[in-house]
Order: sequence, then structure tokens, then C-alpha cells
Amino acid sequence: MNIICHQKELSQAIGVVQKAVSSKTTMPILKGILVETAHNRLKLTGNDLELGIETIIDSQVIRDGSVVIDSRLFGEIVRKLPDSYIEIDCDEKNNVVIKCEHSEFKIMGYSQTEYPQLPDVDDNFNYEINAHCLKNMIRQTVFAISQDETKPLLMGELIEIDGADISIVALDGYRLAIKKAGIENNIGNINVIVPGKTLSEINRIVSGEEKNIKMAFTQKHALFSIENTRIITRLLEGEFINYKQIIPKESRIKVTVNTKNLQNSIERASLLAREGKNNLIKFSITDGLMIITSNSEVGNVYEELPINLEGGNIEIAFNSRYMLEALKVMECDSIVMNFDTNLSPCTINPQEDTGYTYMILPVRISAGN
Amino acid sequence: MNIICHQKELSQAIGVVQKAVSSKTTMPILKGILVETAHNRLKLTGNDLELGIETIIDSQVIRDGSVVIDSRLFGEIVRKLPDSYIEIDCDEKNNVVIKCEHSEFKIMGYSQTEYPQLPDVDDNFNYEINAHCLKNMIRQTVFAISQDETKPLLMGELIEIDGADISIVALDGYRLAIKKAGIENNIGNINVIVPGKTLSEINRIVSGEEKNIKMAFTQKHALFSIENTRIITRLLEGEFINYKQIIPKESRIKVTVNTKNLQNSIERASLLAREGKNNLIKFSITDGLMIITSNSEVGNVYEELPINLEGGNIEIAFNSRYMLEALKVMECDSIVMNFDTNLSPCTINPQEDTGYTYMILPVRISAGN
Repeated sequence: MNIICHQKELSQAIGVVQKAVSSKTTMPILKGILVETAHNRLKLTGNDLELGIETIIDSQVIRDGSVVIDSRLFGEIVRKLPDSYIEIDCDEKNNVVIKCEHSEFKIMGYSQTEYPQLPDVDDNFNYEINAHCLKNMIRQTVFAISQDETKPLLMGELIEIDGADISIVALDGYRLAIKKAGIENNIGNINVIVPGKTLSEINRIVSGEEKNIKMAFTQKHALFSIENTRIITRLLEGEFINYKQIIPKESRIKVTVNTKNLQNSIERASLLAREGKNNLIKFSITDGLMIITSNSEVGNVYEELPINLEGGNIEIAFNSRYMLEALKVMECDSIVMNFDTNLSPCTINPQEDTGYTYMILPVRISAGN
Repeated sequence: MNIICHQKELSQAIGVVQKAVSSKTTMPILKGILVETAHNRLKLTGNDLELGIETIIDSQVIRDGSVVIDSRLFGEIVRKLPDSYIEIDCDEKNNVVIKCEHSEFKIMGYSQTEYPQLPDVDDNFNYEINAHCLKNMIRQTVFAISQDETKPLLMGELIEIDGADISIVALDGYRLAIKKAGIENNIGNINVIVPGKTLSEINRIVSGEEKNIKMAFTQKHALFSIENTRIITRLLEGEFINYKQIIPKESRIKVTVNTKNLQNSIERASLLAREGKNNLIKFSITDGLMIITSNSEVGNVYEELPINLEGGNIEIAFNSRYMLEALKVMECDSIVMNFDTNLSPCTINPQEDTGYTYMILPVRISAGN
């Protein structure tokens, strides 16, 4: 292989495919990036067997070929080279020479033959969604997936396409996040569980300035295609929890409150809450006023917030972390919190409907708290 | 105690004194910040028994008093409070109430009586130096102190005031950094060793926009006074190495090279050097050309740089880290490297004299390298 490409583009492309390269792998070849010529351009691939990412950049191809290069070293070398043209030359023994201006690196590569192929997903694309919209859907939900490896299905998010609606759902047994949006759908409905790690990486790769992301699904895989980058992921197999059943349909009490003020108050209350057990903060909601308190061995805190209340008073307690994580992604000036009893879940929506719903289970307040 | 002060100023002051609060201490009281009224203002003090920092801010004093408050918690609470006025009230049992707008914290403080006093250093100040200048002197030398606790004196820097010259010197047995500047001196000469940690903290506290820093010395302590902040440090006791003896007076070979280009080349060469032993990089200097190479198991690198050479050719090797750390603080377009033999130290100066000298010992090149 012998190619010439530009340092900036190559460095950026390495950064993208590195997100699918695991440093902890039992197959040493997977610590590498597959570099190969493809139709007079250069294709880079990273693959950890669950997630695969390939991206294509412009290059001048002098001689076709391929080689696998250690991902970390390759990334660091290219990042440190000057903003100029880079020549990569590789002989049949996988000796790689990287030249740029007055620098020359000689390193050992590996043969492509040992590198596992990405699964084949037909790219007669089924669905297309606005990049910024998908990025947002991920950002507003992915923090709510479970970190518990004994519940592998909950470490993924449900993607549900039903007619012209797309929903992304994450839940971990304590809270649930759903974001809905519209999608063009001439094909049919879909119900798949995508690993949370894949969605987090898509969120990082998508800048939001791209136009559309194309999505295709097979029985076992999903393909997300963003400009010159293809992200192929294994799906999680199993039946996702019937989340619609969990969300309360009605609520007795509606509280409207400024999002940022509530976030600031809870952040302060958390300073003491985290010293105690459960990150426990208590809400006391009465006409026009929300009082947030938290007690721990080191002291206690009292916060007052003006609210708009419909329905009766309530005293209820939550894990402050679960509240804060949602408030941070809410993207609206005011939210509406819906309560029923202090043992039933609270649902939170932006005051103006953005298709986002967050649900959180309260913590039972014992006499000791 | 009962005072009112401004959140921004208090938060900033806590950040300053926290640099002298150790989280690892056998005396729990030292995890606190001493908060006390002083002449109608508020004084905060942090003290780890080696380094003490006190700073004074404006405040409205309603009732004089003092209390010690846990540093981490106090800092976090004040940082999270709104940009407004904060009232701190403390009763005789050291119960602290912190109020700001609609927030109220109650935490337990500790009595000042247990808090060790800072050493008394007379502030009839002896010396005065431009803040930006001192900051720079520290930045250009402090990285070269030893990290080896068996050589405690080398973990400090020599501050030498001799007539109208001030020098700061750091060395660790492999390299040496000296920065000289001018100082007004109507008092006398000084020769003290200040802990590197103290100087690093001064470097962090000084923004460079302050005007002057005042310095005073006693037998065992030094005091640096910067606007409303006083930094008091223990001195290291002993005799510093006679560094002047070590620096070569003459050199056979002079190389002038662009600082940034050399730094970039060495950074690239380091990528492979660090895979091997010693971070070893080799310089081959001939007329008009410096070639930098490095070999390791994973490959090798070759870098070419244009230079201006006076004197003969030389082949010499260095630990790349010791080279890079100096190049990063050099602050000049071109440097002059002075060599004699490949076993004798190399000295490096900015091409235009800024009072800075760096000296580095070469690594012996064996046949195996």
C-alpha cells in the first residue's frame, strides 16, 4: 500500500474509529486500526466485536493495499505530525513507513488477514433522522441506562419506531427517560435494543452539524451511517420491559418550577446529602413554595424555591443524583413535575412539550430520616 | 462571629488558602480553614505546618469572632451559592450558619483554639520583585527539582540574592535550571532553600497581573506577600550544592535552532523513545543539519532539522523528557545549545539573553543503543 493524505483529516478519522478500539482485548489484533485503500480513497476501521466503526477519507492512492497499525501509536504519531501531507507506505511484510515533511517513522504493522471483518449490514437504508435530533435523543436518555452487568438488557436503550414516531427509552429500575421525535417511515415498525456504549459513541462522533443520519437494522445488528462514517453495532437480544405500563397516566399534583433554580438548589442540597446515605433530599411542597432539605452528620441545608402549584401539598424524598442528571439535560426554562403520593413515581416534563419525559421513583421517608 | 461578604470574593479567597490545606493530615483541625474577623475585614487561613496561606477580603463585620470550617465542604458550599451576599454566623459552640438568598446551611465548625498559629515573620519587608517576573522565574525552573524524598534539599529551590541580582536554581542530579533577574537590594544578600511545593503554589496563586511581591526572610521561614495574601513557608535547612561549579564555562560546539521545531521533533521522537529504556533520543549534529533518531521494539523514527552550527560535529544522546520540559518553558524563538564532548553536559540558553540557563547531562551511548 502507498497513499498520500492530509494530516488533519487522517488524525480526525483515527479519532473517530478509535472509539471502537478496545485497549482491553484478548485479541491483540483488535488493538489495531485497519488501514486500507478503497476505490481510490482511504478506509480506516476499528472493531471491538460489539461495535465497529469505519470511516473513509480522501487520499491519493499510489498502490492499493492494507495493513493493521497499532491504534494508540498510530494516533499519537499522526497527531504530532505537522499540518501537511502524510505518505504511508507499507510493503508485503507489513513494514509501515510514515513520512511527513522532515519526519519519518518506521513501525511494524500486522496483516489484514487476521483482522475480523465487520458484519455485513445492507445499506439500502431504511430510516433517516436529523443528526442533531438523534444526538439530542441520546444525550437526554443515555445517562439513565443501568450500569448493572447482571441486567444486560437495561445497559442498552430501546429504539422504537412506530409509524411516524421514533422513541428512545432508557431505564435502570430507579428512573426512566424517554425522548420522542418524528421520523419518515415508509417501511415498517422497529423495536430493537442498542447497547448504551454504542449510543454514547454516536453522541460523541456526531457534531450535530451533519445533516442526516441513516439507520438500517438486521436481526442482530444496527448500522448508523453519518457522512463518510459507518457505525455497526450488535443489538442486545431479548424483550425490553413494557415501559408504557410503568408511567403513571394521571397525577394529582402539578408543580411548575424554574429548571435552573431547581438544579442549583438540588446541587447545594446534594453537598450534604452525599455525606449521608442514599443521597437523600426531601421536598416539601406547599402553595407557592418548594422547600428542599437534606440532613447528614456534618450538618443540614434548607432551600426555598417559588413554584406554581396545582393540587394538594406533598412531602416526598428522592435520590438527588437521579434528579440532577435529568435536570442537566432538560433544555427548557421551566419544568412540570407531576406527583400523586409520596410512594408513587414522579414524572417530569419540560413545560413546553419537547417529547421528553423523565420518571423517577421516590425514596420512602422513614421516621429516622 | 457574624459577617456579610460577597460570594465571588469569598469563593476566590477560599481557593487561595485551600492550597495550604492538606487532605492527608494526622491533625483533623488542619483539614479546616480558619475564618476570623480582623480589623473590620475577614481573614481566611490555611496551614499544613510547612506552608501557611492567609488572605483578607472586604466584609461587613457585625460581630467579631472566629471559627474553623471544613475546607472541602466550605469551598463547595460557597462555590455553589449564587453571585450575591453571604452571611456567616457562628455561635460560641461553633455552630455555623451560612445564608445566601433562599439557601441556608447549618454545619459544625471547630474552635480556633486548636488551630496552630502561623509562624511570625516580620513584615518590614526586605525585598520587592515584580509579580510576573517571579512567576516566570518559578515556572522556568521548578520542574527541575528532584522528586526523590531521600534528597530533601533538592526538592527545594535555591533563592540567592547577591547585590542587585536574584537567582532561582533547581537541580535534580540530571539537569539544572537557573533563572536570573534584577532586584532592588538595599539590605543585604540572601541564600535560602524554599520547598518546591511552596513555589508551585505561589506560581498558581499569582496571576501575573498583580504589581509586586514583597519577600521577607527569617532564619527558618520566608514570607511572600501578594496584595492581600501572605504566604509563609518553612525553609529547607542545609547547604545547597555549589551549582556554579557544575556549569561548563566554555564549549566547543554551538548550535542555534528554532525552539518550537526542535520541541515538535523531540515530541515525535519521544513517542518511540518512551517504549524503550531511558526515553533515549540521539542527536547527530553536522554542518547545517541536526538529525534526531530513536529506536525501540515497536519501530524507529528519524527527524531532520536545519541548524546553525559553530564548531565541529557531534553525536550525543539525551533523555527526551529532560529536553522537552525545558523547551516548553523557554519562551524564545531560537535557542543556543552548547556542547563539548558527548559525555559532558549540554547547556541551553535562549538566543537572546533572558537570564535563563538550562543544563542537561547526556546519556552514554553504548554499542547496544
